[in-house]
Amino acid sequence: MSNPTNVSIIPLGGLGEFGMNAMLVECGGDMILIDIGMTPSRRFGIDMALPDIGYLIERREQLRGIVLTHGHEDHIGSLWHVLKHAPAPVYGTDLTLELAKNRLKEWGVLADADLNVIDADDRLEFGNIACDFLRVSHSFPNTLAAVLRTPIGTILHTSDFKLGGPLDADQFDAAGFALLGEEGILALLSDSTNTESPGFSPPESSVRPQLTEIFRSSRRRIIASTFASSLRRIQQLIDLAAEFGRQIAVAGRSMVNNTRAASELGHLWLPSNATIDLRRAKELPPDEVMVLMTGSQGEPFSALSMMADGSYGRFRIEKGDSVILSARVIPGCEKDVARVVDNLYRLGADVYYSGNCDGLHASGHGYREDLRMMIQLTRPRYFIPIHGDYRQLHQHALLAEESGVSPQHIHVIENGDRLEISEERCEVVEKVRAGRVLVDGQMLERLDEIVLRDRRQLSEDGMAIAILVRCQETGEPLAEPEIVSRGFVYMDESEELVNQAKAVALEALKAMPPEERAHKEAAQEAVRVALRRYFSKNTDRRPVILPVVLDV
Amino acid sequence: MSNPTNVSIIPLGGLGEFGMNAMLVECGGDMILIDIGMTPSRRFGIDMALPDIGYLIERREQLRGIVLTHGHEDHIGSLWHVLKHAPAPVYGTDLTLELAKNRLKEWGVLADADLNVIDADDRLEFGNIACDFLRVSHSFPNTLAAVLRTPIGTILHTSDFKLGGPLDADQFDAAGFALLGEEGILALLSDSTNTESPGFSPPESSVRPQLTEIFRSSRRRIIASTFASSLRRIQQLIDLAAEFGRQIAVAGRSMVNNTRAASELGHLWLPSNATIDLRRAKELPPDEVMVLMTGSQGEPFSALSMMADGSYGRFRIEKGDSVILSARVIPGCEKDVARVVDNLYRLGADVYYSGNCDGLHASGHGYREDLRMMIQLTRPRYFIPIHGDYRQLHQHALLAEESGVSPQHIHVIENGDRLEISEERCEVVEKVRAGRVLVDGQMLERLDEIVLRDRRQLSEDGMAIAILVRCQETGEPLAEPEIVSRGFVYMDESEELVNQAKAVALEALKAMPPEERAHKEAAQEAVRVALRRYFSKNTDRRPVILPVVLDV
Repeated sequence: MSNPTNVSIIPLGGLGEFGMNAMLVECGGDMILIDIGMTPSRRFGIDMALPDIGYLIERREQLRGIVLTHGHEDHIGSLWHVLKHAPAPVYGTDLTLELAKNRLKEWGVLADADLNVIDADDRLEFGNIACDFLRVSHSFPNTLAAVLRTPIGTILHTSDFKLGGPLDADQFDAAGFALLGEEGILALLSDSTNTESPGFSPPESSVRPQLTEIFRSSRRRIIASTFASSLRRIQQLIDLAAEFGRQIAVAGRSMVNNTRAASELGHLWLPSNATIDLRRAKELPPDEVMVLMTGSQGEPFSALSMMADGSYGRFRIEKGDSVILSARVIPGCEKDVARVVDNLYRLGADVYYSGNCDGLHASGHGYREDLRMMIQLTRPRYFIPIHGDYRQLHQHALLAEESGVSPQHIHVIENGDRLEISEERCEVVEKVRAGRVLVDGQMLERLDEIVLRDRRQLSEDGMAIAILVRCQETGEPLAEPEIVSRGFVYMDESEELVNQAKAVALEALKAMPPEERAHKEAAQEAVRVALRRYFSKNTDRRPVILPVVLDV
Repeated sequence: MSNPTNVSIIPLGGLGEFGMNAMLVECGGDMILIDIGMTPSRRFGIDMALPDIGYLIERREQLRGIVLTHGHEDHIGSLWHVLKHAPAPVYGTDLTLELAKNRLKEWGVLADADLNVIDADDRLEFGNIACDFLRVSHSFPNTLAAVLRTPIGTILHTSDFKLGGPLDADQFDAAGFALLGEEGILALLSDSTNTESPGFSPPESSVRPQLTEIFRSSRRRIIASTFASSLRRIQQLIDLAAEFGRQIAVAGRSMVNNTRAASELGHLWLPSNATIDLRRAKELPPDEVMVLMTGSQGEPFSALSMMADGSYGRFRIEKGDSVILSARVIPGCEKDVARVVDNLYRLGADVYYSGNCDGLHASGHGYREDLRMMIQLTRPRYFIPIHGDYRQLHQHALLAEESGVSPQHIHVIENGDRLEISEERCEVVEKVRAGRVLVDGQMLERLDEIVLRDRRQLSEDGMAIAILVRCQETGEPLAEPEIVSRGFVYMDESEELVNQAKAVALEALKAMPPEERAHKEAAQEAVRVALRRYFSKNTDRRPVILPVVLDV
């Protein structure tokens, strides 16, 4: 039994992978969850991946609260899933909760959700853990670092942050962090996203000159795309549109939702009478329009992607229009972005994106010198890099060592490690259940690994089904076997192969001892083995083979 | 009928896409093919994509020769396919042909291949087209630009090139190009790969300082990966191993083949007695070993990828080993590379790759100033950007305009455009058959688009098969329907869904007018429609549905 005042740090997502951040902190039987995100996916029909919260569900009686540091999808995107299985009060700023509501509604858990608006000055009490907050700069307004007060000391969770500068969402509370450092910090959990980038993270204002230049030189419509959650970038684009006398049309569901919510809450300024709909945008003189939308990652069914290939009926990009992709390219999306850019050029648009234009994006995450500053301000006893792929955590650990943290006090942990901190020591004491839950369409349930494995195999070599109908009494075939396939060979042109496969299947049954053959499962397995061998030899492919023996 | 002395430029691959370069040039009934490459693929079980050469096959009587400018796979990788369907004499340098042989052998077309070694001083005659060569710098030794002499003027095909410098494979023949410019060039076809990179392409020697520093600081084994075809990079790594007293183990089939071929032909220097096998590498002191291998793109079954996840039995990477990925990351491979790097860090290796270390790679392709220099040296009448995605061709066209080519004389064309050049004009006169042929395993034949579409759908939502056996005479069901699925839902946990689906299938049959129901195809279609609606409503997935009605 662990000491009741020890603190456990249990990452369920976001450590050793990109996206879906989720950090459990436990002390004396009280548990809080900091952030609960998701990761979008584009393969094998998966729509998103969520952290496996099985460990939390088993201990849901201990969960005192869920703290959302800000409203990006990798921090709030699977709140619905936790509220279904381990409901607890939720705390976040007004805008964070407003954006979280969309998905809660979609999954039918909004009505029962206990949502509580906080700001940086609030203190929350969760039994053995109290929680204060400090402002940080990030690409989302009012992002909060969480300061966890426990009986054995203070744990600081930075959330996503950079030092920032003009036009960044908020001023980084350097004095607050320094004061915390003076008081003494037991453990610092710090954002590792950009540990591979030297220097300081450029401020949000660094994109202003390049964007201004594009607005200045454009003679026709401007189509500007960024993340719907990059509210400071959206603000800059809106400011520029106003400055250059362009009306603003907002396209795409998430961009419409987010700009509306943020402007209603006063986090986004929209000039009055300057927003129009797409239909109106088509009628205005081209140099008086800016269309604001998502699609900066080349998402296949985004409005931008469809405009680029001409399949978006409501709006067409024309020769001379300027298209801006004001975002970094998320790893894995490079080919989709390249395809969209190529198509935009084919339409005669002028395209501004990371491949041909610097200064179109500023990261919301600190670079190495920002991260070093955090360590030097707070001078923690223990250092735990969070929020990053393994190589980023690893580099952050080296940076902490460079910055004066004792190497024995630096712990690179990954999802599922339970790191226990006592007054005497800090160590991983067990590996708990963690991993990914894959969500497909509107299925609330876990998409089974077996289903996913099958999809992968189906996508590689397709499948073939052999159906044999036998007489229940005599065991004799009642008809010629049927062979049906998909994604394997084009059957109409493979008559010979199909006929031989039928013979192979019948032969396999005949070759069995009669008493074995009578067992349906054994008969099916024999057919499967024979066909696998036959197809492998004659096509060099290994389709999924499904033998079906029916006794009627 | 076109004028017999007009020249047609017909790209069959590589224009508007990455990889698989293939350029047909025709004049007065004589055709030559310059390069014939492939593109590797990792999706839907496809191993590679080749240019569709249907247009060439129909005109194979006119094909006088195939000129290979150098031995990279995107220039030689589907020579086997042309030799099967449109055989013609092949011309290339000794090393280019040596590397091409591997694949010709693999596909059984080596014995009949007419391979002719050339060097830069040779002239080839193909009826109305004669072909001279000029040396260019590239990451492959003795890469040749093709100078095509036709009755109406000279067409220059640059191949892949950069101006280069110390340690590049060859000196760029600037004087030769300038002389050509003096004589007058009708059309320049120039490499567009790096049109988005400003300045000059760094010389191969630019990677030497960083690589030297890694060799100097490494205390244990060095594992160096690069492309098997980057022979100058391989030479530098070998030179450094020799300089720092390390024995060299070469791992992986293509790396072994290429280093052997190149060293036998004198294009690669290997220190005598310095090459060892992997077994021996494990026994030597760790600071006396370098392992040279492929896998720089995180290819899932490469030796490096398997070493990184611990599944490579013959050699294990240990704590403190240095791993170098000395290559750019090909678009689309970013996530695979990130996975390998993460795994290497988990093993405790020091990893040097593009994400954390500059100066590990120099491109073999010219940057904007290299490309501008080519245009200014040759001053062509017509300019046609080749070898690139559409956006790269587009940027190259703008660069040509900046560099003094008349905008009406610049033609951005894509695969399948037949651009006809006469003494009076230059224009696209028709669109010919072009596209991709997908190759799966050792299937020589085209992988049908239908098969591919099925694989994509199978991979998204899996499939479900419904089997209904009826009595041929009465039309009555002889047994309960069978439902089998893969990649859809996990059947063992979806009993309710499966039972209802069976009822839905029976119901669909019952609801049909008896005379319609008797038709097997109509019955199957009714079952398919009913199940599609049922599954879509109850699972929000759209699996491939295969109804099979059997009358016995």
